[in-house]
Amino acid sequence: MLTVNSFGIIGGDKRQLCCARAIADDGYGVYLAGFEECPAGCELADIGKAAELSDALILPMPVSRSPGLLFAPFSAQELPLSVLREYIAPDKPVFCGINGAATDAELEGLRIMRYSSRDEYAAANAVPTAEGAIEIAMREYEGTLNGAECLVAGYGNIGRVLSSMLRGLGASVTVAARKYKDRALISAAGMKDADIYDLSGHYDLIFNTVPAMIFDARTLAHCAASAIVIDLASMPGGTDDSAARRMNIPVIHALSLPGKAAPRSAGRIIKNAVYNIIREEEL
Amino acid sequence: MLTVNSFGIIGGDKRQLCCARAIADDGYGVYLAGFEECPAGCELADIGKAAELSDALILPMPVSRSPGLLFAPFSAQELPLSVLREYIAPDKPVFCGINGAATDAELEGLRIMRYSSRDEYAAANAVPTAEGAIEIAMREYEGTLNGAECLVAGYGNIGRVLSSMLRGLGASVTVAARKYKDRALISAAGMKDADIYDLSGHYDLIFNTVPAMIFDARTLAHCAASAIVIDLASMPGGTDDSAARRMNIPVIHALSLPGKAAPRSAGRIIKNAVYNIIREEEL
Amino acid sequence: MLTVNSFGIIGGDKRQLCCARAIADDGYGVYLAGFEECPAGCELADIGKAAELSDALILPMPVSRSPGLLFAPFSAQELPLSVLREYIAPDKPVFCGINGAATDAELEGLRIMRYSSRDEYAAANAVPTAEGAIEIAMREYEGTLNGAECLVAGYGNIGRVLSSMLRGLGASVTVAARKYKDRALISAAGMKDADIYDLSGHYDLIFNTVPAMIFDARTLAHCAASAIVIDLASMPGGTDDSAARRMNIPVIHALSLPGKAAPRSAGRIIKNAVYNIIREEEL
Amino acid sequence: MLTVNSFGIIGGDKRQLCCARAIADDGYGVYLAGFEECPAGCELADIGKAAELSDALILPMPVSRSPGLLFAPFSAQELPLSVLREYIAPDKPVFCGINGAATDAELEGLRIMRYSSRDEYAAANAVPTAEGAIEIAMREYEGTLNGAECLVAGYGNIGRVLSSMLRGLGASVTVAARKYKDRALISAAGMKDADIYDLSGHYDLIFNTVPAMIFDARTLAHCAASAIVIDLASMPGGTDDSAARRMNIPVIHALSLPGKAAPRSAGRIIKNAVYNIIREEEL
Repeated sequence: MLTVNSFGIIGGDKRQLCCARAIADDGYGVYLAGFEECPAGCELADIGKAAELSDALILPMPVSRSPGLLFAPFSAQELPLSVLREYIAPDKPVFCGINGAATDAELEGLRIMRYSSRDEYAAANAVPTAEGAIEIAMREYEGTLNGAECLVAGYGNIGRVLSSMLRGLGASVTVAARKYKDRALISAAGMKDADIYDLSGHYDLIFNTVPAMIFDARTLAHCAASAIVIDLASMPGGTDDSAARRMNIPVIHALSLPGKAAPRSAGRIIKNAVYNIIREEEL
Repeated sequence: MLTVNSFGIIGGDKRQLCCARAIADDGYGVYLAGFEECPAGCELADIGKAAELSDALILPMPVSRSPGLLFAPFSAQELPLSVLREYIAPDKPVFCGINGAATDAELEGLRIMRYSSRDEYAAANAVPTAEGAIEIAMREYEGTLNGAECLVAGYGNIGRVLSSMLRGLGASVTVAARKYKDRALISAAGMKDADIYDLSGHYDLIFNTVPAMIFDARTLAHCAASAIVIDLASMPGGTDDSAARRMNIPVIHALSLPGKAAPRSAGRIIKNAVYNIIREEEL
Repeated sequence: MLTVNSFGIIGGDKRQLCCARAIADDGYGVYLAGFEECPAGCELADIGKAAELSDALILPMPVSRSPGLLFAPFSAQELPLSVLREYIAPDKPVFCGINGAATDAELEGLRIMRYSSRDEYAAANAVPTAEGAIEIAMREYEGTLNGAECLVAGYGNIGRVLSSMLRGLGASVTVAARKYKDRALISAAGMKDADIYDLSGHYDLIFNTVPAMIFDARTLAHCAASAIVIDLASMPGGTDDSAARRMNIPVIHALSLPGKAAPRSAGRIIKNAVYNIIREEEL
Repeated sequence: MLTVNSFGIIGGDKRQLCCARAIADDGYGVYLAGFEECPAGCELADIGKAAELSDALILPMPVSRSPGLLFAPFSAQELPLSVLREYIAPDKPVFCGINGAATDAELEGLRIMRYSSRDEYAAANAVPTAEGAIEIAMREYEGTLNGAECLVAGYGNIGRVLSSMLRGLGASVTVAARKYKDRALISAAGMKDADIYDLSGHYDLIFNTVPAMIFDARTLAHCAASAIVIDLASMPGGTDDSAARRMNIPVIHALSLPGKAAPRSAGRIIKNAVYNIIREEEL
C-alpha cells in the first residue's frame, strides 16, 4: 500500500536502532547512518548514500542536542546538521522529532514531517514514561508500591496511564486535576480525585506530570512531608526544588524516559507514527 | 460560600427526587413541586410557592417529553410549561437539562443554565450508563461476561468507562475507535484495539456507543453472527436493525440508563453539576 | 484420547442442555433423556436407550429435588429415581452432582462419580455465582456499584472472585476474613481487609459468602444500617433474617446462581469437570 | 493488650532496622544490638543488655549466614551465635526466621518462635517479592511490560500476586499451573491459563515461582527462545541454566527480594507476624 519502500535512518540513540530493526522486520529496506553497528536486516551507510537510496528519511528525537550537530551518540564522528541539506533532496519526506538544539533555519528546504507532534505519538509514549516512573519509584522507595499512598498530579495521557498502572499494582491512588470532567473520570476509574490547586494529605510517593509550578513550598508542606517526588514534567518541572531541599524532600526529575526505560517500545512508537503519516499523506 | 441557600425542584422522575434528597442532606432548603410524596428534609409545594421561596430552581432532564407539558411523571396533575414563566422571576437561576419536547420559546425570559451541557455531567453519567449496559448484558447473555469476547465501539466517556469495567469483570475486551490516539490509549489500558471502520472477528457481546451507522449489514455479518448487540447510542442508534433481524442477531436499544439503573447516582450527578455552575458563575 | 465417545444426559435444567450442546460441539455423541426439545447435534431418547447407547451418563445437579424423583424440570412426565438402576449397567460411569433429595440407597449399585465434589468445579462456579450476585446488586441498589462501599464476607473461591470483580467495577471494596493469611492476600490485591468477627463501618452493599452466622443482630447494627445484604451462603445463610427485618435491612438470599445467571457457563463447567474425571480415571 | 512491652532486636539487615522503627512507632520500647546506628525511638545496646531489658527478642531472617555467626551485616564486630544462649533467659520469647547456617543445637534451650513459618508471613512477602521481580523485569527488558507477553509459572502466593500486578500494568499474562482448580481461578481472574507440564508459545518474559525443574531444555526451546527468564524459586531454581546458556536465553536468579526491594515493607511484615504470634499465644 505504501509507495515508500525504503527508509534511511540518520542519527539517534537506541530508540532509532530499535525503530530500524522494527521497520526491517516489516520487510522494508533500511539504511543506517550515524551508527557503527547494524541490526540484522539493515545496512550501514554514510548520510549521502542513505539519503540517495531511501524513499524517506527518519531523523532522531530530538534532531539535535548540541548546536550545529545532529544527535548521533553512536556515531564515531560528529555529524554537522549542515550536511543534511547538502545530501537530502527537497522533495524527499524527512520524518523527525522536535528540533531540540537545531534551528528551523538549519532544516529549511527539507520536507519536514514531525512524528513527534502527532497525538498518537504522545499517547503511546505515555506507556514507557509511566513504566519508567514506576521503575524509579520501585528503586527509590523503601516500601512496596502496593499499599503505598500515591498522588499523581495531572490527568493527561501520562497521568491517566500512570495512575491506572499504580492502581493495578495495588497502590492507593489519588489523582489531582483541574477540570471537573477529569475529576469525574478519575472517580469513575475507581480512584480518589483531588483539586490540583488545593492539595493536602499524607503521601508516600508523588508523581507530577504537569509542566507548571504545582508543588510550591506551601503545597509541599501540606502533602509531601514524608514523600518522594518524581517529577516527569519537562524542565524546569513542576516542583520548587529549593523549597524541597530545605524541607528534606527528595525530588527526582525524570526526563526522556521512553528512550531510557524501553527503547524497543519507543522505537516501535516512532515507526507507527511514521507509518500513520505515510498513510494519511498518501506518500 | 454559595449565596443560593434554597432550591425549588420542579418536576422530574426518581432522579430529581434523589437529587432533592441529596441537596437537603447538604443542609439547603428544598421545595418540591410536581411530586405527591416528599423525602425527609424537603417540603412539598406548588410551583408558585416553590418559585417564590427558592433562590434557584431545578427543572428535569429532559424539561419536557410531551409538547406543552413539563416532564413530571410523579405529579397527579399535568403541569403546563406555560406556568413556568408565569411564576418564575426573570433573574432567578433555572438549572435544567435538555429541552426535549419543550421549545426555546416556552423557556424564553427565564435565566436558563444547562447542567446537561457540562462536560463533567456527561463524564459522570458514563458510570451509570456503563453499569446499566452491563446489567442488561448479564441478564440477556447466557454465559458469564468473565471470559466472554466483548467488543465496545467508541472510546468516548462511555466507551472508556464501559470497557474498563468489562475488563475488570474478566471479559476479553476489544475496543474499536477511529483516532490513532484513542487506539494507543486502548492498548495502553491493556485491551485490544480495532479499527472501527474495519471490524471482524467473533464476539459474544457488542456494545455500541457511537451515534453513527457503525453496525451496518456487512459489519454485522463480519463480527456479530453469534452476538447480542447492546446499542447505547441515542436513537436511531448505530445498528441496522432490519439487517440484524434478518440475520437473527438480537439488538437491544438501551437509552436513558442513568435514571433507570441508578437514580441515586444520577441525582447526585445533577446536584454536582448545579453546584459547579453556582461556583463558577459566583451565584 | 478418551475412550468415552458418547454421553447420555438424563434430566436437569438449562445447564444440562448447555452441557449437552457443548459436548456435542466437541464431536461426541449425545443422547438426551428427560427433555422435550433437543439442541442441534444431540438426539432425544428415553432413559433406557440413552443408558444403552452411551459410554457414560451425566445426571443433574442436584440429582433430585423431590423425594423419589429425578430432577427433570423439562420433562413432560415425572422420572422416578428407581428407573436409573433398572436401566444403567453397574460398570457404566455415572457422573452426577450432589444428591439433593435423592438417598444414597437410591443410587446404590451405580458407578457414581461426582463432578460436584471436584475442586475445579467449585472454583469455576465462583464466576457465575459472583456475576449473579453483581447482577442482583445492580438491580436492587439505587446507586452505582462504582464508588459504592461494598463489604464481602469470606475469602474463599466466591469471595475472591466477587471482590476482584467489584474492584474492577470501581467499587470501594472491603473483604472480611478470619485467617491472617487471607487478610494479607486481600491487602495484596489492593483492597481493605477486615476481621470477620469484628465488623463495623458504613456499607451500601454487603455480600455474605460464609455459611455461618456472621451477620447477627449486633453486627448488622454495626455495619448494615443503610445496606442491602445479599447472602450467597447455602441455607440458612449467614444472616439473622428476623433481626434484619426489625432493622428494616433488606436481605436477599441468592442460591443456585450459576444455573440461573449463566447456564451456558454452568454447563461448560460440568463438562470440564466430567472430562477431567475421565482423564484422571483413565476411563 | 500485649504484656510484651519491649523488644530486643538482635542482628539483621535493613529489614530489622525498619522493623525496629515500626515497633517503636507503635509505642513499645526497642533495644537494638548488632547495629552501629539507631533509628529515632530505639536505643542501641549490647546483646546482654538488650536481652535483659526486653520482654521478647527478635532474631533476623535468616538467623545466620555463616557457620557459628549471627547474621549481623551492620555490626562492627562479629557476633557468635553462642552468646545468645549465654545471655537469653530460657523463658524469654525469641522470635526468629529460618535457621540458615545456624544449627538447631545452637538455638537449643531458647524459647524459639518462628515468624517465618507463619502463613501470613509468606503471603505478605509475596508483595515485595512480586514488586522486586517487576523491577528487575523493567530494568532488563528493552520493551514495556505493558503489552508484553508474560508467562508466570506457578499460582501460589507469589504467582497470584505477581500475575495480578502484571495484568494491572497491562501485560498479556498467561499463568501456568498444575491443579485444575488453580487453572479455573486463573481464568476467573481474567488471564490465560496453561498446563505447567506442557508449555509452548512465544513469551517476552518468563517468571518462575516453582521450586522444581519446570524450564528444562525442551520447555525452554518451546517457549523461551526470545524471552528473559526471571527465576524466583529458591536455589537451585526451576531453570536448566546450562541449557539456557546454550540457547542464549538470559536467566536471572532473584532471591531474598523483600529485604532488597522493599525493606520497609519487609520489616513491617516481620512486625505483624510477631504481633500475631503474641496475640495467639497470649504472651
